[in-house]
Formats: sequence, structure tokens, C-alpha cells
Amino acid sequence: MPVGTVATVKGVPQDLLEELGVQILLGNTYHLYLRPGVETVRRMGGLHRFMSWERSILTDSGGFQVFSLNDLRKVSEEGVTFRSHLDGSSHFFSPESAMAAQIGLGADIIMAFDECTEFPADRERVRSSMELTLRWAARSKRYFEEHKSEVPWRTDANVGTAALGCPAERSSAVALSQDQTAATAELRSAGQPRAAVPTQALFGIVQGGMDRELRRESALRTVEIGFAGYAIGGLSVGEPREVTREIVASTLEHLPKDAPRYLMGVGTPEEIALYARMGVDMMDCVLPTRAARHGLLFTSEGKISIKQARFAEDDGSLDPACGCRVCRRYSRAYLRHLYASNELLAQVLNTIHNVSFYLDTMRAVRHSI
Amino acid sequence: MPVGTVATVKGVPQDLLEELGVQILLGNTYHLYLRPGVETVRRMGGLHRFMSWERSILTDSGGFQVFSLNDLRKVSEEGVTFRSHLDGSSHFFSPESAMAAQIGLGADIIMAFDECTEFPADRERVRSSMELTLRWAARSKRYFEEHKSEVPWRTDANVGTAALGCPAERSSAVALSQDQTAATAELRSAGQPRAAVPTQALFGIVQGGMDRELRRESALRTVEIGFAGYAIGGLSVGEPREVTREIVASTLEHLPKDAPRYLMGVGTPEEIALYARMGVDMMDCVLPTRAARHGLLFTSEGKISIKQARFAEDDGSLDPACGCRVCRRYSRAYLRHLYASNELLAQVLNTIHNVSFYLDTMRAVRHSI
Repeated sequence: MPVGTVATVKGVPQDLLEELGVQILLGNTYHLYLRPGVETVRRMGGLHRFMSWERSILTDSGGFQVFSLNDLRKVSEEGVTFRSHLDGSSHFFSPESAMAAQIGLGADIIMAFDECTEFPADRERVRSSMELTLRWAARSKRYFEEHKSEVPWRTDANVGTAALGCPAERSSAVALSQDQTAATAELRSAGQPRAAVPTQALFGIVQGGMDRELRRESALRTVEIGFAGYAIGGLSVGEPREVTREIVASTLEHLPKDAPRYLMGVGTPEEIALYARMGVDMMDCVLPTRAARHGLLFTSEGKISIKQARFAEDDGSLDPACGCRVCRRYSRAYLRHLYASNELLAQVLNTIHNVSFYLDTMRAVRHSI
Repeated sequence: MPVGTVATVKGVPQDLLEELGVQILLGNTYHLYLRPGVETVRRMGGLHRFMSWERSILTDSGGFQVFSLNDLRKVSEEGVTFRSHLDGSSHFFSPESAMAAQIGLGADIIMAFDECTEFPADRERVRSSMELTLRWAARSKRYFEEHKSEVPWRTDANVGTAALGCPAERSSAVALSQDQTAATAELRSAGQPRAAVPTQALFGIVQGGMDRELRRESALRTVEIGFAGYAIGGLSVGEPREVTREIVASTLEHLPKDAPRYLMGVGTPEEIALYARMGVDMMDCVLPTRAARHGLLFTSEGKISIKQARFAEDDGSLDPACGCRVCRRYSRAYLRHLYASNELLAQVLNTIHNVSFYLDTMRAVRHSI
């Protein structure tokens, strides 16, 4: 899932994302809650209609940003008090308010509110954090069950499809109808036939630090609460890669194979292929888009830094093995010039290529499955 | 002509410019000379191939930027010494070196090196500046006639077409072949059948400040030197709009109707329609692209500032009368959110719309002709 933090994959128009074959985007609840605000998005008909994106969207719970962007946060049983990174204003997220926000945004898949345990942490800290996440998971589910009918597109005239009749459909009906199948299939695998049951799919999040025993307990007790899908959180927080791999493997054993299994915040092209082989169904990462904006491009010949002088007069395409509109049309020399000149188009083209490269990687993974 | 200062219309991929119907772009010799450098562009086959733009390109002489971006410039009979706005390094442009740079860049239309007379200026200053521009015009033409065969695409395998076989053609052959006609026609009107005579078209520039008599003399003596087209320079430099209009009208009288007449650096949609009615064939302006990046959007209902809070929940399209991909797909509320959140996509979408609006204006003008 490419990351579209505030209802946009930075620099790339939605129709180009459709052309690239993006089936689902991730939106960040924390950022959308601050700007433009949940009520605005709700009144505009929900995220799909607001950003004119007819395909699937997943929103995170806001928990990770609260923990990663806030040094001054105060965690209590009730929830988390934090300060906006934009203006320093004080805000409060609880499992209930995080659910209310995600229901108001109206993504197809939403996440239970969790505490992302820091690394390193001693066993007692990891256990108490895991227990808090489990209590918050139960509260998240309870609130969701009581309020799931409040999604903006449910009360909308077009019951059943988030963005039916939104401009997107008019502007590229063919591309969308082709994709409907894929998107619907993806959601059905999450137990939510889109057309039939117009509610969101709530996923639970497994914590437990780097402790296989606690991960096992967290997985079993999260499954016991019962969710449409299960995420593995609290990884890629600074631990060695082999530890990540070991924890992912041992956690997957305890998650049902007939529900989507989502590894949060991962990773490089090699890693997503590896984790998919291990049984992970979904992943998200800012790497392809953020790296692109810093001139780091993924190619079939490895990662390259386009700012390097050696590309100044290289008239070859960025990645001869890539068929994206950037590699088909522009030379490395031109991309290097755009980046060296700090031109907007550098970030646009670099992002299109990196997202294309990631989606090609996932297509290859699906094909091999 | 949309402005593509350093070989890019800021934020807009070339294939979208083609889709919008852009037939010719303006590149700034001063900026391209500093970055990526003329020799790099020449070795890459010229501007068309370097930026993968198969349609027409015009480069200015660098004169205007030297005068507008350099307070420390030193003007002599020989030329102008100036400092780079990037690193303060010292450089020198003469009519000969400005021609050499433009021949190396290889645009379809290039401009004689002129002195843009400041405003206000007394009659003696305006006359001496005009005389200098006339001497530089003769030197520009002489150098061009002796070196015009040195264009990068002339010595290229694909004689006759600047970017034949460049990736652009492969990636969107249909759109391009449709446009060939228009582009070729435009060049033929400049006396340069593209396929038959693969050299550039050199335009002269009329100066003379706000003095009708000096403008008349400058026009007649520039025509006497003889160019493929004629530009009116030194306007939109702070004078009242009615003065601009009066000087344009009186200067046009003395320029041949069978050669392209190019008014440099204007203007608003109303102005370009007005000047076209007066007989101007070509115009360029940074207004549509620069304004877009500042959230100022041109619509059939007038100019709007998309940052305004009143658009925060406006789900109408930006301009109901506009058929561009932005107006077809996105709401004012979404565009306002992107701008308020300082998102890259705001600049991309705003620019696409403004360029589309300007091209629609020119299409209406052509239709009325």
C-alpha cells in the first residue's frame, strides 16, 4: 500500500496512481485528524469522495504517529494526550475517539488503537504495553460495533459503494471498472463483500515487542477478541532485520490463514517479497515515496542516487527493465538535472517510478503465488 | 507559450502538456546556460531530446534575465558581464555567445540578444539603449548565419526533425502525430518548413521604451536587418497597461504581417485575447504557472485564491466551464486542502488547470480568427 498521508500520495495525481495499478492506499488518521479534520472529510462524503479515489483505502489508528511524532505524549489507561506537530495544540486520542475518527474518514479498512512499544524495552514494560493494547483492542471493537453504521458513505445516497458517482468514475470509468474486480476481491478476502455489506473492516494489531512468547500471547488474545484482519505492529522500530524476520515468522504461526495478515511499516523491495513468501498479505511503507523525494530510486539493477554527477550525461533510461511512463520517456540525465535543479517535476517523476517499481514487485509476488 | 524555464514546466510531466495541447514551450537561455549547461544539453542532442519534448521550443536570448536578475551587471558595447543568481560566479554574454548558447540548445525559434530598457528612462537613455540593441541585432544575425548549421539535431542521425525517435514519440505516437501538423504549420509560418530546412528560426526584438517614434524607428531598422519573426520587447516592465496597449498597437503597424509577431512577457487571459485581436501572433508569460504555485487560479468566473477558507467544504469543481482533468475530477475543497497542507500535488494540479485555461483562451482566439 503506497502511503497517502493527508489524502494524497505526494506529487502524484490520482489518475496516474490508477494507471500504475494501485488498488489500495494508506491514509494517516493522525494527520487527517489535524488537517483537514475528520468533520470536514465526513461532510464531504468521506475520504474516497474527498480525494476522488474510488479504489480501496486503509487508515491507521493514529497510534503510531502519536508515539513517533510526540515526545510530550502522556499515556493513561484512558488514552493518549499529545501535541500537534503543526501548532503545538493539545489533543487526546482514546480507542473510542480513534475509532470515531476512522469511521468519520470512512476508509474501507480501519485499525484498532494500539500502543506501539518502543525498542529496546524490558520484558515487564513490553508485557504491560501489550496488555494495554489488548484492552484498547477490546474497547476499539466495542465502539466500532456500536457505531459502524455511521460511515459517511453508508448514510450517503449511494449506499454500498464509497465513491459511486464521484468524479473519478466519470473521468476514467474503464480503468475503474476493470479494477473493481481486484478491489472487491481484496475486500471480500477481508470478509467484507463491498457491494453487499457497506461497513468498514476493522483489523486488530498484535504487539509484544521482540519477545516470541509475548507475541504468541498477543496474537492468540487478539484473535480471541476477533477482527476482520490482523496486523503485526511494533516492528521496524530499530531492531536488527533478522529479529524482525524471526518475530514475523513466529507471530504468523498464530494468526488465522483465512484472514488478511498485515505487516505494518515494511519495507524494502527485497523485504516485501520475503515477507510475502512467509505469508504476509499486506504491507505499507513510506520508503518508495519518501526515498523518491530524496532522489533515491529503486531499479532492477539496485538502488541508485539520481543526484550523482555520473548521471549528468547518461542518456539511458532510469531502469531498462521498467515499463513505467518515466522509464519509457526520460533519460537519467534529465532526471538528474531535474533533481539537481530542485525542480518539482523531479519529485513527481521519481515518485511515479518508485511506486511503479514496488507494484511490479508485488505483481511478481502474486504471480509466483 | 507556457514557460519551461529549465527544461520543465514546473510540476507537469511532458505527456500531460501534450494532452493539454501545448504546441510550443519557452525555455530560458540564462537558466539553462547556468544549469545543466549548454554543452551538456548539446551533447544530449539538444533541448528537445534532453527533455523528451517533440513539439516546438523557443528560447529567449538571456538578455531579459540578465537585466532582471542582476543588479551587478556591467553593460559594454561588447556585451554584458553578470553574476549567477545561483552561486555568484561571474559570466559574460555577448550577441555572439548568446547565439552560440541558443544554437547549442537547439530550440526551433531563438531570439537576438537585446538590452531590455528599464522603465522609466529618459529619451536619450532609451535611444542609446535602442541603438545598442540594433547593433547587437546585426551581430546576432551575422553570428547565426555563420553558425546555424551547428545545431545538435542537424548533425544528428535524424536530420530534419529535432526529436525524431526520441522516447516521447514512442510513448505517445498518436498524440504527437496529430500535433505534427499544427507544430509544422506554426514553424512554416515562421518561414521554416521543419522537415525541409532543418535550421532554427531567428527572431529580432524591437525596443524603444514608451516612445512611439523610437519604437517605429526600432521596428523599421530591425526589419531592415531581416529576421524570420519579430518580437516586441521592453514592455510589461512597470508601465501603465494603456501605455503598453498604445505602444503595442503603434509598433505592430511597422512589423510585416506575413512574419510572426511576438509580444514578450504578457499577460493575463484578458490581455492575451486583446493583443491577439490587435494582431499579435505569439505571447509568453510565467503568470499561469507562477500564479498556480501561489494558489491563484484562473476560471471562467474570474481569478480565485484557492487558499481561502470559504472553499474548505466547497464540493463544486474548480471551474464548471473547464474540461481539464483537474476540474473533471477534483473538488475545490480538495484543492484547498492540498494547498493549505502545502502538498506537492497542489502545485501540480493548480498548474495543469491554469495552463489548460490559458490554452483554452488561445483556442477560442484562434477559432474567432
